[in-house]
Amino acid sequence: MGNLPSSVKLGRHVVIEENVIIGENVQIGHHTTILSGTRIGDNAIIGSHCVLGIKPGGNKQMRKTNGQNAELSIQSGTKIGNLVSIYTGTTIGKNVFIGDHASIRENVVIGESTIVGRAAIVELNTTIGKHCTIQTLAYVTGDTTIEDHVFIGPCVSMSNDKYMGAKPFALRGPTIKEGTKIGNNASLLPGIIIGKNATVGAGAVVTKDVPDHITVAGVPAKKLT
Amino acid sequence: MGNLPSSVKLGRHVVIEENVIIGENVQIGHHTTILSGTRIGDNAIIGSHCVLGIKPGGNKQMRKTNGQNAELSIQSGTKIGNLVSIYTGTTIGKNVFIGDHASIRENVVIGESTIVGRAAIVELNTTIGKHCTIQTLAYVTGDTTIEDHVFIGPCVSMSNDKYMGAKPFALRGPTIKEGTKIGNNASLLPGIIIGKNATVGAGAVVTKDVPDHITVAGVPAKKLT
Amino acid sequence: MGNLPSSVKLGRHVVIEENVIIGENVQIGHHTTILSGTRIGDNAIIGSHCVLGIKPGGNKQMRKTNGQNAELSIQSGTKIGNLVSIYTGTTIGKNVFIGDHASIRENVVIGESTIVGRAAIVELNTTIGKHCTIQTLAYVTGDTTIEDHVFIGPCVSMSNDKYMGAKPFALRGPTIKEGTKIGNNASLLPGIIIGKNATVGAGAVVTKDVPDHITVAGVPAKKLT
Repeated sequence: MGNLPSSVKLGRHVVIEENVIIGENVQIGHHTTILSGTRIGDNAIIGSHCVLGIKPGGNKQMRKTNGQNAELSIQSGTKIGNLVSIYTGTTIGKNVFIGDHASIRENVVIGESTIVGRAAIVELNTTIGKHCTIQTLAYVTGDTTIEDHVFIGPCVSMSNDKYMGAKPFALRGPTIKEGTKIGNNASLLPGIIIGKNATVGAGAVVTKDVPDHITVAGVPAKKLT
Repeated sequence: MGNLPSSVKLGRHVVIEENVIIGENVQIGHHTTILSGTRIGDNAIIGSHCVLGIKPGGNKQMRKTNGQNAELSIQSGTKIGNLVSIYTGTTIGKNVFIGDHASIRENVVIGESTIVGRAAIVELNTTIGKHCTIQTLAYVTGDTTIEDHVFIGPCVSMSNDKYMGAKPFALRGPTIKEGTKIGNNASLLPGIIIGKNATVGAGAVVTKDVPDHITVAGVPAKKLT
Repeated sequence: MGNLPSSVKLGRHVVIEENVIIGENVQIGHHTTILSGTRIGDNAIIGSHCVLGIKPGGNKQMRKTNGQNAELSIQSGTKIGNLVSIYTGTTIGKNVFIGDHASIRENVVIGESTIVGRAAIVELNTTIGKHCTIQTLAYVTGDTTIEDHVFIGPCVSMSNDKYMGAKPFALRGPTIKEGTKIGNNASLLPGIIIGKNATVGAGAVVTKDVPDHITVAGVPAKKLT
């Protein structure tokens, strides 16, 4: 840890591996672990007990990704809570907020000023736009696209596996277009497209595409009339 | 850490900041971090890898609270699991049990002998009564009132934001009255009032108030006949 | 930690208590805590910030189990992520994968080559077969039986308490038979039996038994025709 800027403020028992780049005025909480291949921008604030820069692993049944060697980049002004895990090959934009206990996998891009809530999970190969809110305990599955200014309510659930493990690797998460709002505990099925400025009610189960500007609710979700 | 009672039993690599008060016969597990402004009562048991006394942060879009300077008080006989995060400005009563991976925000009050389950989350400005059970992975949103002897099943989801981020700060969580039971994975909408000794079925989506002593189920939830 | 094999690769600030047995070629990440009564097989890989071998605790209202003295056994070739908690009295078979932030209670058996996803929770006295996938944020309640080759989707919720805390200790989780698939965010009620090679749709609320080879969906779940 010899090459850290003198402006960096470290907690106790922090572990920083080789090949880590840390900008000016960064704060890192107690017990946090920063693994090799992590880059942290200026003025970022990292909480306690985080693990940043995890390499993808898994067992033989789990698919491999291309993120094994790419770095984790946390851009300037971003705040990360406590007990958070983030993988390599992921870019977290400027002024993002990541809540405590959240987990973000490899090959993810999160746009600037987005909020990822407490204990929310973002799986691999997913893109989230700018100024989004992903609420507490929301589950953003792999291979998902979320455009700008989207609101994902608490405990929203998504799936990317139409065959539930029976056929390998034919995975596609939902696409959620700009300005759309998803109510708490809604369930989104694999590959569905939810249009711009649409609204999905709390607890809805969305089984097919939702056009722009439409509100749907219920199980299965239907247009409110 | 010079002023700890000799009866305190500390794990390895424990971090205790300045301005922490710890009672008699307290046990603290390995790697746990206790931040300044935390008070722990006699006979409390704290697990490993916890972060206690977190100051509220967030980014510019997130509202500020008054809890920034108030202490975290964990009262006597309370047990806290492992990998738990708790904020300042919160009071956790006597003989409470907080499960592993749980997270409790600022300005929360939890009454005596209540159980907060594994990975359950309690957001800011919420009051939970005595002898309640908040089950595993339940999500108690901000600005919620839960009276005494309430049972919140596993994976229950609540919301406090009727406008899903479109209008700032008009937040109100549910009110759940004494003795009521909420089934697993039910969804509660913002501001609803669920009366005394009511029952909400598993998976129900509660969109309007529920009178005392009534059982509701379904999507949207209706009175069982 | 004098009797560790020289082939073991330890991270920094690892805590290993007395009465821990660790096999050959085991890797243990930074800050991980291994409590007394834990046995780790050859070639296992453990991430950072885990707590393994937790003794059951709870408060007076919570039932006691027989697992208080039995060991935690993690068998050879198993991989455990970061920020994971696992209790004593549990056996995790060979080549299992346990995701980050997962939590597994006492008296659990997990069969070989099963995947337990990120932030998934397995409660006490539960048996999970071989080659199962328990997806991210799924909640497997206590006293549950899951046979081999079962797929539990993300955010699936189960309950084992028909009386929601009103009557003590009459607990029975679901039984899910071989080859069955449960869609994301489905809710399963206490004691139901889901037959072989059945399919439960996303967001379904399963209130009664499901025969072999049948697909059900909806609230309450009904056979698809």
